[in-house]
Amino acid sequence: MPLPPPYDPYVRDCPSRRLLDRIGDRWTVLLIAALEGGPQRFSQLLRTVEGISQKMLTQTLRSLEADGLVHRTVHPEIPPRVEYELTALGRSLLAPLGALIDWATEHMGEVQSSRDAVDAR
Amino acid sequence: MPLPPPYDPYVRDCPSRRLLDRIGDRWTVLLIAALEGGPQRFSQLLRTVEGISQKMLTQTLRSLEADGLVHRTVHPEIPPRVEYELTALGRSLLAPLGALIDWATEHMGEVQSSRDAVDAR
Repeated sequence: MPLPPPYDPYVRDCPSRRLLDRIGDRWTVLLIAALEGGPQRFSQLLRTVEGISQKMLTQTLRSLEADGLVHRTVHPEIPPRVEYELTALGRSLLAPLGALIDWATEHMGEVQSSRDAVDAR
Repeated sequence: MPLPPPYDPYVRDCPSRRLLDRIGDRWTVLLIAALEGGPQRFSQLLRTVEGISQKMLTQTLRSLEADGLVHRTVHPEIPPRVEYELTALGRSLLAPLGALIDWATEHMGEVQSSRDAVDAR
């Protein structure tokens, strides 16, 4: 039986590279951070993450569920209430992804200035 | 003159959302982290980030330069030596992106187990 691999996203076929794609994805970042406060319904997430399509929200939540980051609960009510919440693994992503969002909002002005200077050349 | 906007990637047309796309991009993450140790030549980066195409490396470096994250220096030698290094702004991304890489390599096993369980259903 092979030893568990040391994962390295610099290696071409390492699965951690595809995982990096998924966790760095815009919608994943925004959804994980949006779930920080507790369980949310689909419709709430749709409102919070402005402009995400129903299809993209469905796909992203399914992928997060398959990766073990989000847990989906169907409450047996009439009509059934479906809620999404972070698993412990998903919560462990809050700090890294929160740092990414913070960086983007704090440094957007500097990045924009740099882009403007390039455009003005 | 409008006030500087409070950037918010949850808002549909906020430019910070596109910035989040760029900094969360797989190649950006790997390149920024690869430049942590100091200036690198194009050919070194091409070797370090296995499997990136020359075209993709060129495009990503241009985008990082336009965003003010990477500085390109042409040393007037024969043949000219071109080096890429992080700017101060680029260095400020090392911690968030390093945390993302660390998360992916540390939790790849758990994610894979979750994916396997889904596939086995």
